[in-house]
Amino acid sequence: MNIDKYPSRLLENAVNEFSKLPGIGRKSALRLVLHLLRQDKEEVNSFGNSLIQLRNEIKHCKVCHNISDSETCQICSNPSRNDSVICVVENIRDVMSVENTHQFNGLYHVLGGIISPMDGIGPAELEIDSLIERINSGQVIEIILALSTTMEGDTTNFYIYRKLKGKEVKISTLARGVSIGDELEYTDEITLGRSLMNRVPFESSLGK
Amino acid sequence: MNIDKYPSRLLENAVNEFSKLPGIGRKSALRLVLHLLRQDKEEVNSFGNSLIQLRNEIKHCKVCHNISDSETCQICSNPSRNDSVICVVENIRDVMSVENTHQFNGLYHVLGGIISPMDGIGPAELEIDSLIERINSGQVIEIILALSTTMEGDTTNFYIYRKLKGKEVKISTLARGVSIGDELEYTDEITLGRSLMNRVPFESSLGK
Repeated sequence: MNIDKYPSRLLENAVNEFSKLPGIGRKSALRLVLHLLRQDKEEVNSFGNSLIQLRNEIKHCKVCHNISDSETCQICSNPSRNDSVICVVENIRDVMSVENTHQFNGLYHVLGGIISPMDGIGPAELEIDSLIERINSGQVIEIILALSTTMEGDTTNFYIYRKLKGKEVKISTLARGVSIGDELEYTDEITLGRSLMNRVPFESSLGK
Repeated sequence: MNIDKYPSRLLENAVNEFSKLPGIGRKSALRLVLHLLRQDKEEVNSFGNSLIQLRNEIKHCKVCHNISDSETCQICSNPSRNDSVICVVENIRDVMSVENTHQFNGLYHVLGGIISPMDGIGPAELEIDSLIERINSGQVIEIILALSTTMEGDTTNFYIYRKLKGKEVKISTLARGVSIGDELEYTDEITLGRSLMNRVPFESSLGK
């Protein structure tokens, strides 16, 4: 679509801004902008302001580096959570995923990524040092490495494992195995092999 | 995804706002918001402000009802356009589509929709009276009805045609026929039938 054919500069600006978002092309951007034009002024103002406020006012928790409205996030400042277990995750979305399982009552540590030399991300770019500090502070009994099961995830796991060698902290990782709902036929052989090796007593698979 | 699991109220607000947009669910909204969080503050501010400005400052051209930055749009106020031909379209997007063909140098009239009793849209909700006024004003020689080729479009065409009966203005409509690039096998029989009835001399199909 020809760019100089927009009937209004304001429209063009808004379309340009929307089409910078991932997965939104110029046609979708135009559709979204025309949708907003049909909404009440208050609706659109509150949309625009919610984005501006978000970016300007959001904080990162100084303990776990999760995003937060305050200096210390809701999870870290919740006295009913178990502060002796830390679940190490890549990003904010993974915190939300683990929270949604309702199976974890400890704290988190958001690395902000995983080691990926291809993308120029080394340990120094991640919140690994602050993780070690948290562990050195003493009260942590266990850390759970909950990173992606990719080569980069494994590398990061191994890096953290090496850094913590000799320290008195239990290091565990998520169980690997056949996903619930998966058919064996379509499960890759490495996953299947590992889940055979790490087979569990049938009673424990019945859930609690 | 559980709504009370968002780590920040600001994040939740922004996700809520994004997921009001058509075709954007809560998961995509979260992905877009996290993308914005990684951008510079200036970027996000200009995004938010572009939407607020758009909604608060945009005008509708008082002649053709297209959106515009000024009282009269760029097209209506352009002296090199032929003001004796008016192309009648449903919405702003259709103006842009016709403009992109570079085959039309007249003016437009944006109805703001088409007659659709199912959706409660009658002639009074549309800019039909103002179209008639424009024609009554005298200098219009031809109007081109460029509405959707649906039942609603045909109804609207016929309504306008009836309203203009007896007036000295030529009423034409877009040519119907086989789309360029279409295979006959996949062309519906009504289109094919009409394009047979309205066949044109071969020379004229060679373009100019």
